[in-house]
Amino acid sequence: MSEERFNELRGEQVVYAIHRQDRTFLPARDHCPLDATRPGGPETEIPVPAFEIAVFDNRFPAFTAPHGAAEVVVYTDDHDGSLATLAPARAEALMWVWRHRYLELGARKDVEYVFIFENRGVEVGVTLHHPHGQIYGYPFLPPVPALELAADARLGGCAPCALLAEELSAGGRLLHQNDGVVAYVPFAARWGYEVHVTMREHRASLAACSAEELRLLAEALQTVVRGFDALFERPFPYVMAVHQAPTGGDRSPSAAGGGHLHVEFYPPLRTAEKLKYLAGSEQGAGTFIGDMLPEESAAELREAIARGA
Amino acid sequence: MSEERFNELRGEQVVYAIHRQDRTFLPARDHCPLDATRPGGPETEIPVPAFEIAVFDNRFPAFTAPHGAAEVVVYTDDHDGSLATLAPARAEALMWVWRHRYLELGARKDVEYVFIFENRGVEVGVTLHHPHGQIYGYPFLPPVPALELAADARLGGCAPCALLAEELSAGGRLLHQNDGVVAYVPFAARWGYEVHVTMREHRASLAACSAEELRLLAEALQTVVRGFDALFERPFPYVMAVHQAPTGGDRSPSAAGGGHLHVEFYPPLRTAEKLKYLAGSEQGAGTFIGDMLPEESAAELREAIARGA
Repeated sequence: MSEERFNELRGEQVVYAIHRQDRTFLPARDHCPLDATRPGGPETEIPVPAFEIAVFDNRFPAFTAPHGAAEVVVYTDDHDGSLATLAPARAEALMWVWRHRYLELGARKDVEYVFIFENRGVEVGVTLHHPHGQIYGYPFLPPVPALELAADARLGGCAPCALLAEELSAGGRLLHQNDGVVAYVPFAARWGYEVHVTMREHRASLAACSAEELRLLAEALQTVVRGFDALFERPFPYVMAVHQAPTGGDRSPSAAGGGHLHVEFYPPLRTAEKLKYLAGSEQGAGTFIGDMLPEESAAELREAIARGA
Repeated sequence: MSEERFNELRGEQVVYAIHRQDRTFLPARDHCPLDATRPGGPETEIPVPAFEIAVFDNRFPAFTAPHGAAEVVVYTDDHDGSLATLAPARAEALMWVWRHRYLELGARKDVEYVFIFENRGVEVGVTLHHPHGQIYGYPFLPPVPALELAADARLGGCAPCALLAEELSAGGRLLHQNDGVVAYVPFAARWGYEVHVTMREHRASLAACSAEELRLLAEALQTVVRGFDALFERPFPYVMAVHQAPTGGDRSPSAAGGGHLHVEFYPPLRTAEKLKYLAGSEQGAGTFIGDMLPEESAAELREAIARGA
């Protein structure tokens, strides 16, 4: 069903999930496969009349056991909700669901890297509007976490710890903080409104966080997304990527090293109406060309977060 | 005007060209800045009444001397032309223009990598429809050519030479060939209709090609783009990236090593109507998930090239 090939010039795996061309594409409002199954209504992916958070195998998977995993995480049975509008207790519960999946998938021998993410908005290709995220269990270490490990090696220590210290010291790109978590536009953001949400203490993964830290992480993520939505007074598209320690090789997920839990948001908008496209420089050379300095977008986002509060 | 910052987690430079937010955006048909300046008409970027090929500094540059370069290459004064529809002699002349710019920019001390590219179609963010490409002279070696050098090192020789030999041997992904150039969908394509056009002999750059090879390169590029346009019977959007040897450090452009001239096309369409989006896996993990095998898209493209001939 799925095939991997090594791309020699890029030094990376490419995955072909050739059945996915037929996947569900923007279904009508009353045929959402991520809704609960209403009595008398069409059967959805979730065969119960109501639920809080649901996790199941992706019907159109990029990876399948015993060679990786692809799961869907539905945040709520409210079709029109979002990460931003979940009740705080539900957002906190989502952190525990993520933690559970990280531990369970990370313990599998065929999973080298557990990647929790959310695609939001048609601008990033979303085909189902019901609030949900996904989890991939890669059977190899993908390029981006490999680059983060390389940054640790280059700096001789935890790169996210060092970068967070610099952000706290500089101050001008900070967006929001609580006792456990700091949100900021990073010094060298690739996207105009890129935001990183980083654990204040060194935590390799969700598994290393205290219950209070999980609650504080949920609070910070919701604050950031409410700010995004307030920025242009519209649902704000983004890719959200949860980066944690790899679990492959001799690493066990409960004692994972070489990672520091942080959540990265990549929003494709550079104004209320205009998208940032990945074109010649980004695709062919690998260098992002941006339109605005991170300090400028941080100032805009701070105001938006205040409006969204 | 422009600022570079090192993105530690990705190990790459990010460039901020903060004046570009105001750049010309899809101007009206009779106000195209890449048209020739007609007598009595508005003054364009090109102050002559007619021209064949024009090269000038980008008015909204990502790089400026003495810290890199950003140029525009207008293929023709025919607003409605394209690389595919240029007269063969004009397409051949374009190769000589590219070669000239590679040599001239590559000789500059502030340019480490000369990158010739074209963005085509609103799907990749094109703001001017007049047929044109661009050239960036990066003041550093960008990530993608660095990965190609790493592939050479990993394989212990020229990676494009080795990959071309494999494509010729496998045969099933070949699209078009002549005595100088081979076009194919690569074994591990990241984009559904990705095409590589590679010099048959080892040629580090345009500067190393014979006049006949330049003519044959133009012929192959035009054949591929005509095939693209025939595939869905519409102008086919793409990013075209010309990869050559870096020119920085102790390399001189006329004796450049560590590179093999090839042209990569990255088309964002995966069907006539549907775009491939770079979402969670591509952006957050760095792994492309594709919908179709390269052999399948090669078969479609071979038929399209026959129709487009």
